[in-house]
Amino acid sequence: MPDTRRNFLRRSALIAGTALAGAGLARSTSAAPLEVPPTAQQPGRPIPPASYGMPSKFESQVVRRRTDVFVNRQNWSDWSMTPLQHQHGIVTPNGLIFERHHAGIPDIDPATHRLVIHGMVKQPLVFSMDNLLRYPSVSKFHFMECSGNTLTDWTKVASTTVQQTHGLLSCAQWTGVPVSWLLDEAGVAPAARWVLFEGADGSNHTRSIPLDKVMDDVLLVYAQNGEMLRPEQGYPLRAFIPGWEGNVSVKWLRRIKVADQPWHFRSETARYTDPMPDGKWRQFSFVMECKSVITRPSGGMKLDRPGFHEIQGFAWSGRGRVSAVDLSVDGGKNWQTSTLEEPVIDKCLTRFRYRWNWDGRPAVIASRAVDSTGYVQPTVQDIMKARAIAGFVQHHNGVFPWSVSASGEVRNAIA
Amino acid sequence: MPDTRRNFLRRSALIAGTALAGAGLARSTSAAPLEVPPTAQQPGRPIPPASYGMPSKFESQVVRRRTDVFVNRQNWSDWSMTPLQHQHGIVTPNGLIFERHHAGIPDIDPATHRLVIHGMVKQPLVFSMDNLLRYPSVSKFHFMECSGNTLTDWTKVASTTVQQTHGLLSCAQWTGVPVSWLLDEAGVAPAARWVLFEGADGSNHTRSIPLDKVMDDVLLVYAQNGEMLRPEQGYPLRAFIPGWEGNVSVKWLRRIKVADQPWHFRSETARYTDPMPDGKWRQFSFVMECKSVITRPSGGMKLDRPGFHEIQGFAWSGRGRVSAVDLSVDGGKNWQTSTLEEPVIDKCLTRFRYRWNWDGRPAVIASRAVDSTGYVQPTVQDIMKARAIAGFVQHHNGVFPWSVSASGEVRNAIA
Repeated sequence: MPDTRRNFLRRSALIAGTALAGAGLARSTSAAPLEVPPTAQQPGRPIPPASYGMPSKFESQVVRRRTDVFVNRQNWSDWSMTPLQHQHGIVTPNGLIFERHHAGIPDIDPATHRLVIHGMVKQPLVFSMDNLLRYPSVSKFHFMECSGNTLTDWTKVASTTVQQTHGLLSCAQWTGVPVSWLLDEAGVAPAARWVLFEGADGSNHTRSIPLDKVMDDVLLVYAQNGEMLRPEQGYPLRAFIPGWEGNVSVKWLRRIKVADQPWHFRSETARYTDPMPDGKWRQFSFVMECKSVITRPSGGMKLDRPGFHEIQGFAWSGRGRVSAVDLSVDGGKNWQTSTLEEPVIDKCLTRFRYRWNWDGRPAVIASRAVDSTGYVQPTVQDIMKARAIAGFVQHHNGVFPWSVSASGEVRNAIA
Repeated sequence: MPDTRRNFLRRSALIAGTALAGAGLARSTSAAPLEVPPTAQQPGRPIPPASYGMPSKFESQVVRRRTDVFVNRQNWSDWSMTPLQHQHGIVTPNGLIFERHHAGIPDIDPATHRLVIHGMVKQPLVFSMDNLLRYPSVSKFHFMECSGNTLTDWTKVASTTVQQTHGLLSCAQWTGVPVSWLLDEAGVAPAARWVLFEGADGSNHTRSIPLDKVMDDVLLVYAQNGEMLRPEQGYPLRAFIPGWEGNVSVKWLRRIKVADQPWHFRSETARYTDPMPDGKWRQFSFVMECKSVITRPSGGMKLDRPGFHEIQGFAWSGRGRVSAVDLSVDGGKNWQTSTLEEPVIDKCLTRFRYRWNWDGRPAVIASRAVDSTGYVQPTVQDIMKARAIAGFVQHHNGVFPWSVSASGEVRNAIA
């Protein structure tokens, strides 16, 4: 049922009864035309000779924010979160893409940056940025999610907004060169199985990635959303590993090494692992499984009155396309089908929309995504059957509920 | 032939012969691993509590620029152009979307902004921004092109870069409410045929649009690429008329009036009209016809050596999807098929790619797009048969050539 048909209001009147008209969405008046505003009575600001535009001063509240929950004693190994409650469409503006750094943000001069490929290859190679930019490129829309996204709510520490609960999530069109092209050129040894990516930041953040994935769809990315990477997203070069946890998409990339086994770096033992019920920890759990969240209405918002409201949110899967998003307004007892807005792209944020006629009584709203493999987003209870929940939990993809009070306040229903 | 297959280099070797390897794309050396750079030996910049990210200081040359060709004596009715030669993918970053203003940029407070709908309607309506944001919304990827894009080259005034020749062109995902929903609510009179859009800027920029188009796909847009409109793109509200010349997508929108005939505003008589061979001027030529341009390599760039080069560019059509882009490297004598990169979206920029093995001799490269209606982008000579070319020409969609000299310099082949 496309949203753009001329007869939407007539159809909605059928669906939502008198609520749509009754709720007075348009606040109609007979005053027309309006008085001429001051801005229409004088010239505005002139165009400068050269410029890079910025948001309106009236949008200064729309910023990335560090978490209020875990306050670090230092500022270098930290993160800031995307204001998903303010995001329209599926593209996250470059200024609002979430950050996660292990030793702050380096400012790298692209003229001096180098990438080396070595290890189990016939011919080690070194690339300047000019070399890499000379290759053919590809551009792809993909989400990026931190493995720790939503961990604060799993542990029931109160987070009020969707920026705090799910803001380690962004989406962009990424441009770069498939790593497979360069590895083919270097000549990978037949016994090779793993690939190391190392960053040029102060932490030398380093990860081991299976060669099969690298040869399948991993990119050397130098641009996001039409322009060169921002410094905090890895300028001038990063790995991009579609559908996998964000930290493996190593930023400020300077080294690729090929080997026959993984390296077991600190980020693969002390961090980025999942506790299991038998007391052991699961390593190399890279894929971000199918997940969704309602962003509007979401925590901190207020429904101004009963009647018609559009519920919107994001769904995504590290294994493929989103095939459906179910919507519940009664805490998961009943589920309806929402509308997925095109384009629906592999391993990319997909926006879902659902038209809800709120009766004014307390409600609990939640979304549940299904991906193209048939996998259904689990409840927290489902996840607890398979994994232990202890401390700093990664890979939370449980169904996430918001409560709506009789007065319209929307709150985190887990905290 | 998808670009992402593991066996690209092997295939390319077949296609490009020894040129790919022979050209030494990778500049291989045996030095591995690299020395540890200074950025990897110290912490970087810390993450601030709240932030809106900006490009690297090393990308300061990537900005919108006013034209060097037509220098206005004032700065209010002017334009600035998108640096298409630096754009990756199909999304233009919000900071680089082209500008065209008739009286500068107003800074409008969304709390006080109002939109009125009146004229031949049953019930005039007034909307605040809160009212409009309460409606369901849609998000769509579309290009936006000024009717005057490429006019400087039609008249053979020298422009060196694709920013100067084609930079009144951008692409974004636009979010807002279909105007038809609100007009249905207001109740359009049966005799109505035209709709007025008026801006709240100092020029009160105003245009007449046929009702059929408005009811088909015109949007009231408040967001672009995931965040609220920038001031220079109409914050907090603009019309968006997919596939039509940019100036009809009236910015800072404050008034919609419905009538049975057009108003013949100054922008519909003195401006935005096309001279015809019989000496008359064509009014209301809204649609931006199918067009394409090569952005890489383009004017001002230099091919460093003969051998393999990827030719890239954009194609678009105001009437539908791009169905093919043909590529010539011999000034239009012979044409080959280029690859269109997904997603290919209706009335949206589409990126084409073509792998060229340059033999080092002077060449003239050009692209020619075909859209889903079967329309083929014309040559300048084709256009001259149908229209007069005089002075400030609008709606130039001719095939655009770049010359490549034996030393690799790329220049505007029209100037």
